[in-house]
Amino acid sequence: MSSFLAVPGMALEQQTMRFHNPINPFTLTAATPSVVRTMDRFDALIQDLVIANRILAREEVVDAYGHVSVRHPDNPNRFLIARSLAPELVGPEDIVELDLEGQPVRDESPSLYLERFIHAAIFAARPDVMAVVHAHAEDTLPFGIAQQTKLRPVIHSGSFIGTEVPVWDIADKFGDTNLLVTNMAQASDLAKCLGGNTVALMRGHGFAAAAGSLIEVVRLSVYLPRNARALIRARQLGGEITYLSRGEIDARNRGYSSYSVETWRAWEYWANRAGCGHLLTRPADHTAKDASRDR
Amino acid sequence: MSSFLAVPGMALEQQTMRFHNPINPFTLTAATPSVVRTMDRFDALIQDLVIANRILAREEVVDAYGHVSVRHPDNPNRFLIARSLAPELVGPEDIVELDLEGQPVRDESPSLYLERFIHAAIFAARPDVMAVVHAHAEDTLPFGIAQQTKLRPVIHSGSFIGTEVPVWDIADKFGDTNLLVTNMAQASDLAKCLGGNTVALMRGHGFAAAAGSLIEVVRLSVYLPRNARALIRARQLGGEITYLSRGEIDARNRGYSSYSVETWRAWEYWANRAGCGHLLTRPADHTAKDASRDR
Amino acid sequence: MSSFLAVPGMALEQQTMRFHNPINPFTLTAATPSVVRTMDRFDALIQDLVIANRILAREEVVDAYGHVSVRHPDNPNRFLIARSLAPELVGPEDIVELDLEGQPVRDESPSLYLERFIHAAIFAARPDVMAVVHAHAEDTLPFGIAQQTKLRPVIHSGSFIGTEVPVWDIADKFGDTNLLVTNMAQASDLAKCLGGNTVALMRGHGFAAAAGSLIEVVRLSVYLPRNARALIRARQLGGEITYLSRGEIDARNRGYSSYSVETWRAWEYWANRAGCGHLLTRPADHTAKDASRDR
Amino acid sequence: MSSFLAVPGMALEQQTMRFHNPINPFTLTAATPSVVRTMDRFDALIQDLVIANRILAREEVVDAYGHVSVRHPDNPNRFLIARSLAPELVGPEDIVELDLEGQPVRDESPSLYLERFIHAAIFAARPDVMAVVHAHAEDTLPFGIAQQTKLRPVIHSGSFIGTEVPVWDIADKFGDTNLLVTNMAQASDLAKCLGGNTVALMRGHGFAAAAGSLIEVVRLSVYLPRNARALIRARQLGGEITYLSRGEIDARNRGYSSYSVETWRAWEYWANRAGCGHLLTRPADHTAKDASRDR
Repeated sequence: MSSFLAVPGMALEQQTMRFHNPINPFTLTAATPSVVRTMDRFDALIQDLVIANRILAREEVVDAYGHVSVRHPDNPNRFLIARSLAPELVGPEDIVELDLEGQPVRDESPSLYLERFIHAAIFAARPDVMAVVHAHAEDTLPFGIAQQTKLRPVIHSGSFIGTEVPVWDIADKFGDTNLLVTNMAQASDLAKCLGGNTVALMRGHGFAAAAGSLIEVVRLSVYLPRNARALIRARQLGGEITYLSRGEIDARNRGYSSYSVETWRAWEYWANRAGCGHLLTRPADHTAKDASRDR
Repeated sequence: MSSFLAVPGMALEQQTMRFHNPINPFTLTAATPSVVRTMDRFDALIQDLVIANRILAREEVVDAYGHVSVRHPDNPNRFLIARSLAPELVGPEDIVELDLEGQPVRDESPSLYLERFIHAAIFAARPDVMAVVHAHAEDTLPFGIAQQTKLRPVIHSGSFIGTEVPVWDIADKFGDTNLLVTNMAQASDLAKCLGGNTVALMRGHGFAAAAGSLIEVVRLSVYLPRNARALIRARQLGGEITYLSRGEIDARNRGYSSYSVETWRAWEYWANRAGCGHLLTRPADHTAKDASRDR
Repeated sequence: MSSFLAVPGMALEQQTMRFHNPINPFTLTAATPSVVRTMDRFDALIQDLVIANRILAREEVVDAYGHVSVRHPDNPNRFLIARSLAPELVGPEDIVELDLEGQPVRDESPSLYLERFIHAAIFAARPDVMAVVHAHAEDTLPFGIAQQTKLRPVIHSGSFIGTEVPVWDIADKFGDTNLLVTNMAQASDLAKCLGGNTVALMRGHGFAAAAGSLIEVVRLSVYLPRNARALIRARQLGGEITYLSRGEIDARNRGYSSYSVETWRAWEYWANRAGCGHLLTRPADHTAKDASRDR
Repeated sequence: MSSFLAVPGMALEQQTMRFHNPINPFTLTAATPSVVRTMDRFDALIQDLVIANRILAREEVVDAYGHVSVRHPDNPNRFLIARSLAPELVGPEDIVELDLEGQPVRDESPSLYLERFIHAAIFAARPDVMAVVHAHAEDTLPFGIAQQTKLRPVIHSGSFIGTEVPVWDIADKFGDTNLLVTNMAQASDLAKCLGGNTVALMRGHGFAAAAGSLIEVVRLSVYLPRNARALIRARQLGGEITYLSRGEIDARNRGYSSYSVETWRAWEYWANRAGCGHLLTRPADHTAKDASRDR
């Protein structure tokens, strides 16, 4: 168990108590210079990765399958992700560190996600990306199967999927497979299809999403199926569909900030819904709410 | 924190205990003369605003985003709304007082909702309106995107959306924006589109609803998506749709009262579902049920 | 409070304890001769009516609105129903006794359901009916609005809606109303439309269901929306629909018994789901399960 | 009660404690030689059957109706299944042993499932099958009713339904019935229709699924409705549908193992969701998570 990043024998509650020095984890980027309080900052990031896992489970973006990762704050050539475990069950002690080939950094590793290469390849191809989600969210699936209708933003919260959502079909290059992305060649091909976009659909399988922070990639992943449902139902109503214009998508991206009050509001809400409001680290400029306390 | 309306250091439970003199908060209007017991009456209204926030969250009208407000009982030029916080997490201590330009009345204000101007503009334009909701309820979205099919009442509980639900498109007047209503000019344009109706859809974004009391605007907001779903599915079945007639809509409006046993029944039910049955103030003519007690 | 049927000051738990002599309440009919243990038998029926209320709430057949009633076991000219209260919140102390004009039998009555006449008229018109439900279950609504597609059984659990589900439109005879059935004239017209069937849809409003026992009317009401959904989706798939044949519907009715192990299994399951497994009275021939005990 | 397989008077919690020697229950097949620790192995299988029942309930594959069975590990001519009880409520003490005619092995039997013959006939016809599910999962129903659209795999997790899902109509051979499979003649006809496939749809009723282990048949049954929904929605989007190719289905089957880390991950997740993470037996090569412990 020495390969785990957190103190194994320590209960989650106790670990939470250590976050006595609240630093906004969303300010972390690969370029942030290492400081004296590195350990605290790193622990806060692990904590956020746990929250991200549980939010994605609660919001039904993932079930037993699907995963979320974050680039290592001090080493851009590494990323953090859970061992092979349903996201709903992930705790700090389940986080492992992998390199950009998807290989574990330490020797004694537990079982790993078969598809960890998706994360490795996207982090390798996109220096701007700090966090990655791969999931099978049900309502995104139809757009990978019936490729005539393009998935495009129709609601403001769906704007972050951008002007184009490419569909990657593993069969195009790799023929008949089990559809899983189980090596770097497949993952790199997916990353190439993703290009500079934020989401790529994977035919008959799910999607890969990439963003500049954990909170952004979680938000993107939660609203992606909602945008999909709104579009499916709008098509059922018939007539012309009004998509978000390129100008609107750009305006939303310009106005978006991982640091803003509005962004934090959703993170805080989802964390509480997922039963881990008590794990929230409290940025200095907010009065975070842990709903389990005052009810 | 001195700008908050409730005693900050006081837990919700304790605050509840102060409602020893149950006055039906639904009788409050801007015209009600100020009386000796103003403080109690005011506290009861704050309490109801908290309940409204939690009901809208529980019934999935809002998520981290969306908000509900009520006009100030003693000053029609002010309204009460939560600080920037997910409605699910709102308590009495989170309520702030704003003027009809959307500006905070007190100096030391916490972060505010970006779109508070929606409320300000509707309260300014419509003296008859005592409560406003803005939300993104998922099943209302298709009708803003595929504008060929008008959203109209098809079920009796949907009658309160009225004979016409206008669709406001921010792009018509303001071009490419981030779709949020972030100033009075935009909000006034939305209020103008709303006109004398109870609901306006906002293209690619959500809706704004206005009513004569908190309980009415909550009921309107909960049944709006239900009416939308019934209409979407009726259209899937094909053939002619039977909408409510204008006469039926009028008959329902005539028979409706915020004070009635029937109206209270839903408020009480939703409050219990939202886990805040214990916050209900008990009108003299009812035997309110707090389900958490007798189970 | 003297008009209530149960001991008002007595908690639900305590009242449950009185059911020490378990008699299967499903064997009760209006024709059952009164026996020495009448009180126990009657209490068990009240208990079952409470369970029925909570099941219908849990299974989303009703919300704050909608109600269930049972004919009085000793007087076929009376029926039992809750006072004006959301079914989710109903306890034994909330049950009142009404006559077949929908009027309360005792003087000091609490507020009553506006639409209690639906029950009165159906009990009056149909001596074979022992229990009635009126509700607005969402997925039944489209079939009242888009009347081109008839609601008919397509799944075996939907067989009890019978070969024909008439649609009653209050406007046909009563013009522009608030769509509620608020007097005996309207209710009798609805009962006439129902005829010898088990379910009538009410345009833009909901449905009325009638059956030979509480358990049957609950089962009918829970599977009605499921049958509706299966039919809506089958139509989306296109092509010819295979409905249950008249022979199949008859075969299922012949084989059905309120007393059977199979019927009890669902009642027990739903009661546990609704959090009131502990209220189940235990028929002699069963080993009832209260899930709250062995978990 | 002597016919029950577990110690009747023993609470579930206590029984769990006996699983001190964790053996992976998924390694059990009819061919496994009997060993000294047979009792433990057998108890573990009973425990897994309980978990399977509760998972199917939690994931809405079954409600009060539907059942799951497993072939007896030491006698291929017998199988284990619950007595007539909703799967949500099944405990170890409710498991009975039946022969391949669907008859109980012991004399004093409790009430049995009417449709137990489905299991008997499939176990009799298919020596490779170790576990069977019969259920009415809602979203599989449309494909039995509107037979124009074939149910075929469109998502990778749906691959296990195979290249063909036959639709069995009981009316073809048995005319007007109550649609239930209540004798061996009907069940054998269904098994014949199933042939070498993993799933057969039953018109107007549900489906029967067969697999090489409990975990496989559960996974198959959970993802079957998901695949159905993805296909229904993809058809709504219009245009050509991309199904999984035969080569992809074969590749997935080749790569699948009941023993793998990936398979266990879902089982563990679903068991925790169903509230019985504490019943999981812990295979030697895993660190199983019981979410009820560290939250």
